[in-house]
Parts: sequence; structure tokens; C-alpha cells
Amino acid sequence: MNSNITLNEALHLISNANIKPLQKEKVFIHNSVNRILYDDIKAIESSPKFDTSSMDGYAFCYSDLERLQNAGLEILSINKAGNENECEVGKGKCIKTFTGAKIPKNADTIAIVEQVYIKNNRIFLNENEEVAPYRFIRKIGENYKKGDVLLPKGMQINPFHIGILAQNNTIFLQVYRKPRISILTSGDEIAEIGEIKENDNFIYSSNNHTLYAITKALGCESSIHNIIQDSKLEIKNAIESALESSDMVITTGGMSKGDFDFTKEVIKDFGETIFESVKIKPGKVVSYINCKNKHILALPGNPNSSVVSFLLFGRLILSKMLNKDAAIPIQKAKITNDIRNLDSIRLEFAPASIKLVDGIHEATIIENRQSYMINRLNDAMVIMDKKANKGDLVDIIILNDLLKF
Amino acid sequence: MNSNITLNEALHLISNANIKPLQKEKVFIHNSVNRILYDDIKAIESSPKFDTSSMDGYAFCYSDLERLQNAGLEILSINKAGNENECEVGKGKCIKTFTGAKIPKNADTIAIVEQVYIKNNRIFLNENEEVAPYRFIRKIGENYKKGDVLLPKGMQINPFHIGILAQNNTIFLQVYRKPRISILTSGDEIAEIGEIKENDNFIYSSNNHTLYAITKALGCESSIHNIIQDSKLEIKNAIESALESSDMVITTGGMSKGDFDFTKEVIKDFGETIFESVKIKPGKVVSYINCKNKHILALPGNPNSSVVSFLLFGRLILSKMLNKDAAIPIQKAKITNDIRNLDSIRLEFAPASIKLVDGIHEATIIENRQSYMINRLNDAMVIMDKKANKGDLVDIIILNDLLKF
Repeated sequence: MNSNITLNEALHLISNANIKPLQKEKVFIHNSVNRILYDDIKAIESSPKFDTSSMDGYAFCYSDLERLQNAGLEILSINKAGNENECEVGKGKCIKTFTGAKIPKNADTIAIVEQVYIKNNRIFLNENEEVAPYRFIRKIGENYKKGDVLLPKGMQINPFHIGILAQNNTIFLQVYRKPRISILTSGDEIAEIGEIKENDNFIYSSNNHTLYAITKALGCESSIHNIIQDSKLEIKNAIESALESSDMVITTGGMSKGDFDFTKEVIKDFGETIFESVKIKPGKVVSYINCKNKHILALPGNPNSSVVSFLLFGRLILSKMLNKDAAIPIQKAKITNDIRNLDSIRLEFAPASIKLVDGIHEATIIENRQSYMINRLNDAMVIMDKKANKGDLVDIIILNDLLKF
Repeated sequence: MNSNITLNEALHLISNANIKPLQKEKVFIHNSVNRILYDDIKAIESSPKFDTSSMDGYAFCYSDLERLQNAGLEILSINKAGNENECEVGKGKCIKTFTGAKIPKNADTIAIVEQVYIKNNRIFLNENEEVAPYRFIRKIGENYKKGDVLLPKGMQINPFHIGILAQNNTIFLQVYRKPRISILTSGDEIAEIGEIKENDNFIYSSNNHTLYAITKALGCESSIHNIIQDSKLEIKNAIESALESSDMVITTGGMSKGDFDFTKEVIKDFGETIFESVKIKPGKVVSYINCKNKHILALPGNPNSSVVSFLLFGRLILSKMLNKDAAIPIQKAKITNDIRNLDSIRLEFAPASIKLVDGIHEATIIENRQSYMINRLNDAMVIMDKKANKGDLVDIIILNDLLKF
């Protein structure tokens, strides 16, 4: 039994767990943002698809250079971007050709408008100007060639990719379907938001809403279920029912050793316990159960504990469902506190505020932090793995970076 | 006329322009992600709202310590989290009190379960164990007090804030309404995605879709309009009509000096030109017109030029509509190319790929880059403001950071 293991052991166990990628589905281009590509997106044609002028100028054949300098070249026509007529230059002729326009047949050179003067419908090269073949011409395929991979499978589409898809006329594309997540919360002390209670001995449910927002940001189809009372049977039934309609069930609460902590025991019957209890803070009492291609991630009840352990483990499980293996994006930041008194057993992820100072992230650990203080998580977490003095570079995780794969 | 100005001059002009913040509206908690808070969110009650046990243990009055060590304390009852009955301890008594439960009246101390043994329904302190008042008690208001600001106005709500709102029972909250954006593209050579054309002298429209995705990510209500032909009248009519229904009209194309570049002239009649032409690359031919509390941002036609100038200027205009002043998040990265041959006139934003190596971003500039090569923008841009050698720290902008305020 993998109990009371290190963070890296837990991550390794997830990476090696039997997590089958989800099926594919097709989505329209505008709905593809944040989705994971199931197939390579290949170029349907080269870019540019024909030699194209990159400036406003006159297209001619370079063998006519001497004529351009002496007798001039006759302007045959105007060739704008999107011109529906095919153009062709002959000896001694040129065609006014605008940025983005297709280069006329037989032309290989552009003299830009600033390089020439016009007299009697002929262009002449200004003194001291030089022209060269293809200098202001984007050659066919110089950006990419038909069949080239524009976006590789496994890539998470971002808004900047939408233009690449559009330019390629890729309107309907294959992505992994959204992981279906059920979010369950248990605890007699938990009231749903908006609920009216007769006495004040309750707290409003926050974990389920935070996890809903996080999983939605990660591209899941998430649903929040009823708050479950501290009853073995209720917990069992709720998980069983949620598993039917989802790929992953996330529970919060009921994971400690107390007399009313039932979740920890109940989940074991649903499948193989990949691990339980990881030496992290906040967190620790977190179990991952693999149940024949469905997944239960049982998180602690304290808000920061549940969020941090979801971000470390849940995000990785999701990424595997999407055929990726999303590493935790750790970066360096200059610390403004001294780091002392490290937890000798658990690796702490301490909430911190960050700001960019001269392009370097400065992180300030929030001193008064407890795992129930949900309002501490905002910008980032400092990984408290060694002593450090104010000004040292330490490892941090920017929370926003955990909202993508 | 502010023409051909520097980036900083342009940003300064926007910061000082007459951009009135938008009205407020109310949204449900789950729909508030990425929105900008119009009001402070204040605590409706303290956290914790009563003294709360932070461990499973026995609550008693510290003045009974000697009795705990000798005669023991009688266990009166069980007090779990969410207990609906009020509990009270008296002299010589204790109540088994679980994590998250309200501390019984008259109790000020918790002996955790590991510290005691039980005999005849009485608890006795184990040898060498120490208890102290309030050690395992979260005191009322120690996290925050009723009326404290939990989330300040102007903050952009992220998924981690959703839990704070839920815990505070803030279900319906005031945010700035979404900026309404109309996206217009012009150019005879532009075909809408999916369109069938008789000849091949066209490119599929990408700018409008990229800008749609970017503005959506920034929380706008965006709409894409018909492709406009290169006609002064069509352009004028399209802008006029779009302005009626939107806060900002974004156009792309028609901004150079070519015979068919009409947008540049047409937009001037709609309001005050705050600037036109900024010394950046890609970009340059970008105009911002302020028209009595509506805005026209006219972008160049090349894909990278339009995206980069939107990110630099459009994002700032939007942020002002949302009563913020979003700086450009510039950070340092180690460069893997040498930077030479800087543009002597224009400040270049060069597309680059980035990766985290030992917690430090490494940026690799894409050497073959032209402003029409839409597929170059993916991770980041390097600000090419000075020569640098491989391994030096240079300024970069991570594109993802520009998708929030």
C-alpha cells in the first residue's frame, strides 16, 4: 500500500497508473480554445499559396532591369490583392502590384513605389536605387508547405492558434472530449451557499465551488452534487451514482482519522488505491482510487488542502485523460521573507503574493496561513523545500499556470 | 497629431485618454470568473465565526488541568462539526470535540485524542503531554473579521476566489459589464472561412477570428462582422453601424499608404485621433480614435501586426473601460540566440518559444519571422530593445499573461 509517500512518489504513481485517454469529438473553431488537439492540424495548402508581393510596387521580369533604367517599363494594369484576373507581364512591361497581391506571371521582381518615378505611363528606376529578384516577394511555401504540421496533436489550443486554424480553413476539428467531473462534498457542518439554517453551527460550502471553477478552467464538464451528510451509506451511494455519469469523482472531506471520517474507508471498495496520504502541506490525506478507467480523487476537507492537492494530483490525472503528462510548472522567484522552521516531514506549499520587479518575480509568503484559510490562495505558492534568506531565489508555482496543461 | 510615436508615448496617450469605465451588472458566482469586481467584497461574518476546534480531541476548561492529570475529566457528550446542539462544559467535565466543531461554552482548551487515555468514561492526560489554552482552537475572527475586505474592487476574479465568495455566501455580485466589441476586417483578398471562391487569389480571414478569441479570453462580448470590400463607403458604413452597438470597434487592414488603403482615412471622421502610427514591429500602422466614449482601434492587416498591436494597445483600452490600468507584464528570460541587427527605427516584438529550464524561462527567437506569418506567435515575444548575447537575460512578454488584466 502506497501510504504516506512523497510528492514525487505520488506523481510517479499517477504517471504510471492505468489512465486511458478519453475519446475524441469534433468542435467548431471558436469552441476549440483550451481544448487538446486529437490530431495534427496539417496545412491544406502552402503559405503563401502563390508568390505574393510584400510591398506596393511594380512587378516585372528582372531581365528587363536595363530597360527599367533607360527606356522605362510600360504600366500594363493594376493588380491589387484579391484581384480576380490573372495578370501576365511581357518584355518591357510592368504591372502595378500591391501588398498581398499575386505576382503576375513572368514577373520575378518588384520595384517598390518609392524606388521609381512615372512618366508617360512608364516607370523608371530612381538613381541609386537597386532592385533584386524576389526581394519584395514572399515565395510560395516560404512560411509553410501543404501538408506541414501547423499544430501538433496534444497541443492545447490557445486564442493565438485560432488564426492559424482560420487561415487553414479548419472550421471543425477533432479534440479530446471534455473530462466529466462530479464534485462531491461531505460534512454535517457544510451548508450549501444560499441555504438558510436554524442555528449558526455551519460553514458555507466552498470546496465544491472552487473545484468547479478550477476544473471548468481546465476544460472539464463539471457538475456539483448535493452536500453529503457524514454517513457511510450516503457517501457510498453518492459516489456510486456519480461514478456512473462521470470520468472522475472528486470528494472533499471525511479523510482524516476522526470518528466521522467515513470517506477514506468507503472509497477503497470502488477500486485500486493507487496511493493514500502524501507528505505535503497543506494536504496529506488525499487518496487516488483507480476504478477500471474511472477515477476517484478523495481530497481533504480544508479549503487550501483540497485545492492544493487537486492542483498537484487532479490536474495530472486529467492531463493523462487528455493524453498528456502535464508537469508542474515550477519557476524561480526572489523571496522577500526568510524561510526557516521547515516542516521536517511534509513538503509545504506556502501561499504567497507575487509581483514583477524589474522583470523578476518577487514572492512574499503569507505568514499567517492555515489550511482552512481559503483567502490566502491568490497568486502563487512557494515550495518550502529548503531554508532560504530574503533575496534568495526559491521555487514557486504560479497558480494561473496550473489552469492549463 | 501624434503620428509615428514611440510605444511608451502611445501607451501614455491611452492612459490619459477619455475612457469612461463601463456600467456595472450582477452575475452569479460561477459566471464571475475573469470578471472585474465593481465593489469590494466584504465579509458578512468573521472567519471562523466562532471558536473552532482545529483537531479531534476533548474540550475542557484550562482551570481543570490538574484534574485532567489526576482524577480525570468525565466525557459528557460528543460534539461533532455541524452539531446542532449547543454544548457546555462544567468543572471536571469535558466534551469530545472534532475538527471543525464549535468549542463548547466554558471550554478554552483541547487535549487532542493522541494526548489522552480513557478509563471509565473519563479522560486522563498521558505522561509528558502538555496542553495549552487555545493551542488547537481557531479563534473567532482570526482569519478575517466581519466587514473586512475579502476581495477588493478592481480585482479580476480567478477560480481560486470562487471559494472565498462561496464561503462568504456571495452568490450574486457586481462586476463591470462586458465590453462589447465589434470586429471588422476589410480587404478584397479576404475570404471568410468556409467560403468557396471561383479563383484562388484570396486568403482565408484569420485576424477576425484571432481577435475574437483574444477578446473573448479577456472577457468581452465580441462579434464578428462581414468582410468589407476595399471601398470607402462600405468601410464607413460598416464602422458606423458597428459603433452603434458596441463600445469598441476593431478594424484590420486598409491602414498602409496603398491606393486601396481606405480605412486609415475613413476612421478620422469618427472622432479624435489619439495617435496614428507607432514605431513598433510588427505593427506600426495602428490608429486609436476616441469617439465620445466609444473607441475605434484600427489595426494593420498582417496577422502578427494586428495581434501584437491589439495586445499592446487594445488590451490597455479595454482595461481602462474596466477601471483598471493594466501594465504590460514584462519579465526576464535567458535568451538562446544572439540578438544583433536591431531595427534602428521600430521596437521589435519578436515571436519566441519559451521553456522552463531549472525554473528559469529560456526564450528562443524564431529567426524566420515576417508579419504575415501568423503561425509564429505561440508562447512569447522577446522585446528586441538592445543587443544581447546567448545566455543574457532579456525582456519578454508571455502571451498568456496578456489574456488577463
